[in-house]
Amino acid sequence: MGRWVIISTERARRPLEYQHEAPPARAATFCPFCPGYEDKTPHELFAFRERGTSPNGPGWNLRVFPNRFPALKIEGALDRQGEGLYDKMNGVGAHEVIVETPRHELLLSDLDEEAIERVLLAYRERINDLKRDTRFRYVMVFKNHGAAAGASIEHTHSQLIALPVVPINIAEMMRGARHHFEYKERCIFCDILKQELVDGRRVIYDNPGFVVLAPYAPKQPFETWVLPKLHTAAFEEAPTAGFRQLANALKTALRKLKVALDNPPYNFMLLTAPFADHGAQHYHWHIQIMPTLTKVAGFEWGSGFYINPTPPEDAAGFLRELET
Amino acid sequence: MGRWVIISTERARRPLEYQHEAPPARAATFCPFCPGYEDKTPHELFAFRERGTSPNGPGWNLRVFPNRFPALKIEGALDRQGEGLYDKMNGVGAHEVIVETPRHELLLSDLDEEAIERVLLAYRERINDLKRDTRFRYVMVFKNHGAAAGASIEHTHSQLIALPVVPINIAEMMRGARHHFEYKERCIFCDILKQELVDGRRVIYDNPGFVVLAPYAPKQPFETWVLPKLHTAAFEEAPTAGFRQLANALKTALRKLKVALDNPPYNFMLLTAPFADHGAQHYHWHIQIMPTLTKVAGFEWGSGFYINPTPPEDAAGFLRELET
Repeated sequence: MGRWVIISTERARRPLEYQHEAPPARAATFCPFCPGYEDKTPHELFAFRERGTSPNGPGWNLRVFPNRFPALKIEGALDRQGEGLYDKMNGVGAHEVIVETPRHELLLSDLDEEAIERVLLAYRERINDLKRDTRFRYVMVFKNHGAAAGASIEHTHSQLIALPVVPINIAEMMRGARHHFEYKERCIFCDILKQELVDGRRVIYDNPGFVVLAPYAPKQPFETWVLPKLHTAAFEEAPTAGFRQLANALKTALRKLKVALDNPPYNFMLLTAPFADHGAQHYHWHIQIMPTLTKVAGFEWGSGFYINPTPPEDAAGFLRELET
Repeated sequence: MGRWVIISTERARRPLEYQHEAPPARAATFCPFCPGYEDKTPHELFAFRERGTSPNGPGWNLRVFPNRFPALKIEGALDRQGEGLYDKMNGVGAHEVIVETPRHELLLSDLDEEAIERVLLAYRERINDLKRDTRFRYVMVFKNHGAAAGASIEHTHSQLIALPVVPINIAEMMRGARHHFEYKERCIFCDILKQELVDGRRVIYDNPGFVVLAPYAPKQPFETWVLPKLHTAAFEEAPTAGFRQLANALKTALRKLKVALDNPPYNFMLLTAPFADHGAQHYHWHIQIMPTLTKVAGFEWGSGFYINPTPPEDAAGFLRELET
């Protein structure tokens, strides 16, 4: 997919040699994402609730609402215009928060598989709803864990942003995947899965439906991917029967990273196909988990090349053998 | 150039509302980049020295040597090979450190223009030397200031990495610039300069040779570019007479950022043309300065889109009016 990474074994490091800021102890101070403070957030868009409880009150197991400080605003028609050499577009989009559990003291990886399955089903529910808005071309679901990874509220949550354009990284990944398909008439991710399962050195875990692996060219040390074994372009097209297995694979990946790297800050991104490419034979949705262990510095900004001190085979071997 | 940025005015922030880790007080403890410890670094490759002093001893005003922990190694022939679906190449390259001053207590922006000019001349000297090595296609010169921006040693220094491939960000910038040239027969950076100087809202400073401006789509708040007014594809082709003016523009940009943002961590990158594109009509070298004020989080990793809470016109206006 055109990604080159420098694996810098001169600087090779074992997992606990990476320093990161320790997440602060989970405080019992006011948290707007805790039950009882539903009036401190915008009105809820979706929730899994106990029978007999009402929206915008307690009794939920998972709750989705608009971000109070959205990067993009939901109102308004699309308006793209030139400004001399440049193009501008008004910032139409949706920016939502998915609070994954009412329990402030838990991390996503502490939840049981049923609760993680609910999180994944909530992603699907929101994507399918936003898809009906014809202004949007893509929904990016992501999670920031820890202040160093950009989280400003510690209560475990994910976010999504619906966009009126296909973002550049996705467009480039689609282009690479399409190029491979035109040449070989095979999905590049299916090819990667087949090669990795035979080779085994970069496989961290698998269950009947999903594979957890260290990608061949990881941008960050311990970058970890979760891929469905069954070819599917879009996450929201994935069969419901597989969601429990996805929850199992995601939990396993996050648990192993938590133990190996002492609860590192991390981001994960759900990389699904753009709406226009649903059903595509050349693309295959997956989740990328990116621990925040090194800084993005001048060389990375300038070149787009990443310097990674831990070979993916070492990272995978370490995570594979870890009991969690 | 295909860069889209979300300017998030809902979250608009004034300069000192950005929190960043304060650089530690400059300690008087052992520093391998200080005069008297030349034996703690690899052998020097280049220096500006007082008359009568010898390499690898004190008496220098600026000193260049190989990085002791290089991301890439200088020895070895290029060897690119397939590994199933993947490609790998051995890590041949040069990774050098440019210590900008013997004085540990100074920042680059504290140096006088003559000293900054020496830094720029040293970049040129090293690029021209590395260009003679036919294995290399590109030299990326960059600076990391502050731990949050990836600096591991506080004594002010820049780095360069010579690469056997043109890095992806540069290749994409060249493609964008070539596309503009094919369509308009003009350099896109010359067009940007002309438009920005007439418009004025994003101009921070200019002197007869250089313009300092806030780019139209800044990836980070207070991203600042230094561009030569004279079209030149490669930095090392720039006329020597202009180096003092470049020193003046770079110092002014860094001073203003230091005062406005309270000595922020930052990176800068010298974006010159690949060796193969020297003399190109479509590309125009420049320096990008990127303060580290926001985190690269899940949305940015996944989408390649950046969310910027400070419009470039506000950043430029603020920096323009600042007395330094």
